[in-house]
Amino acid sequence: MFTETFAVRFYETDALQHVSNTALAGWFEAGRQPIFKMFVPDMNLDNWPLIIASYKIDFLAQIYLQHEVTIKTWVKRVGNSSFELHQECWQQEQVKSRGVTTMVHFDYASERSVAIPEHIKEALGKHLLDTSSM
Amino acid sequence: MFTETFAVRFYETDALQHVSNTALAGWFEAGRQPIFKMFVPDMNLDNWPLIIASYKIDFLAQIYLQHEVTIKTWVKRVGNSSFELHQECWQQEQVKSRGVTTMVHFDYASERSVAIPEHIKEALGKHLLDTSSM
Amino acid sequence: MFTETFAVRFYETDALQHVSNTALAGWFEAGRQPIFKMFVPDMNLDNWPLIIASYKIDFLAQIYLQHEVTIKTWVKRVGNSSFELHQECWQQEQVKSRGVTTMVHFDYASERSVAIPEHIKEALGKHLLDTSSM
Amino acid sequence: MFTETFAVRFYETDALQHVSNTALAGWFEAGRQPIFKMFVPDMNLDNWPLIIASYKIDFLAQIYLQHEVTIKTWVKRVGNSSFELHQECWQQEQVKSRGVTTMVHFDYASERSVAIPEHIKEALGKHLLDTSSM
Repeated sequence: MFTETFAVRFYETDALQHVSNTALAGWFEAGRQPIFKMFVPDMNLDNWPLIIASYKIDFLAQIYLQHEVTIKTWVKRVGNSSFELHQECWQQEQVKSRGVTTMVHFDYASERSVAIPEHIKEALGKHLLDTSSM
Repeated sequence: MFTETFAVRFYETDALQHVSNTALAGWFEAGRQPIFKMFVPDMNLDNWPLIIASYKIDFLAQIYLQHEVTIKTWVKRVGNSSFELHQECWQQEQVKSRGVTTMVHFDYASERSVAIPEHIKEALGKHLLDTSSM
Repeated sequence: MFTETFAVRFYETDALQHVSNTALAGWFEAGRQPIFKMFVPDMNLDNWPLIIASYKIDFLAQIYLQHEVTIKTWVKRVGNSSFELHQECWQQEQVKSRGVTTMVHFDYASERSVAIPEHIKEALGKHLLDTSSM
Repeated sequence: MFTETFAVRFYETDALQHVSNTALAGWFEAGRQPIFKMFVPDMNLDNWPLIIASYKIDFLAQIYLQHEVTIKTWVKRVGNSSFELHQECWQQEQVKSRGVTTMVHFDYASERSVAIPEHIKEALGKHLLDTSSM
């Protein structure tokens, strides 16, 4: 599991005085940074090898400005050329939101998916979600 | 079906020179404005009666800066206190992204769901997705 | 003068139930799209020739969710390799915010400013702010 | 001086493969959080006492995805009902961007400025920018 902790930004709230649902898409992306680094250790953008296929976000409780949030990221499933992540947004020891994202190992030049190298599959496998306790 | 058409903004692109996946969460929210107005015709924020339960966005093809996009919004299902929307993002006559969002008729003071009034159920029902042709 | 009119998006509000000051930076950028097209008519990103040097935004009155906004854009000054734009954000026939932005004609490869071609200087000159009436 | 350090988020880049100029407005707002807490220690939103009058941002060098940024915040001037902040965005020991923001102590109900309480003026005064070395 990877974790990223940060303060809520004022502009991420909306007129309902809670965090906008739209902020979560960006926060979960921010939480995927350690996953990106498995594929591109120096974050060089020239031959970026990942594209997003889908994400689903469930909103369990409102998130507020006043407290830090932590994004937790697990690998849910590793396929041949794609993989799924399970993410959670926590605030004050409560899970507020859950996200599942499918990413594809992708060649932007040919616009085709590409098999994930074995050593990255292994690295991803070390962060598998343990569903036995869920 | 409701439609909203707008130009892509430069800041909505990312370093991959396409529209960031995170922009879609905001665009689909923008496409829901006519739905919000069924519940709150004057968009008064004081007793806002809706909260989001979840959204899922599928990315079918990359979206680029150079052309306008259109968000199309249908009602997929109307329940007692919640409803589902089906949305699509089109660019250059191609569907680029699909979203399904579940919204709840909600009382923020008591933090509880509330039955949707009959006249709003009827109004929503006039924008049902016709799945027979899908 | 160029104008762009659009609806305020829900996520652009903040917890003070007005539009976040941070949204204006993006709106004024959106209003500069016709200026970008003077330099890059097809908006091709490969040799993008502009960079921003500074912007100043004055907030005159609060902007709200309920009404469309219009961004008006004038050219304020054209120099050898840089130019200044004057922009205004209007809502309900009231000017709500003013922006002044300095942009530089720029070669990203060498990271140096470049003289603006004469035909673009002329095109910019056709949209000069008339300060005699201000 | 206050400092806030954080990772650049992927969606904050734009198609020029650097950080979008629009992100800075949000980052500098994030850097103002300790100033907000001088006025509202618990960040309660009910009687928020601040509004923004203007900001100016100068872009000195491009900011990239690969390295953390630090926002540094100083008080530049304290007036009767308003104050100015000087902010800088640093990346890899280089100042990349500077911002000056004017904020007003404000009563949203009457839409009027209000004198800043003496104890807050004193607190602000402890974070004055030392311009002697600039």
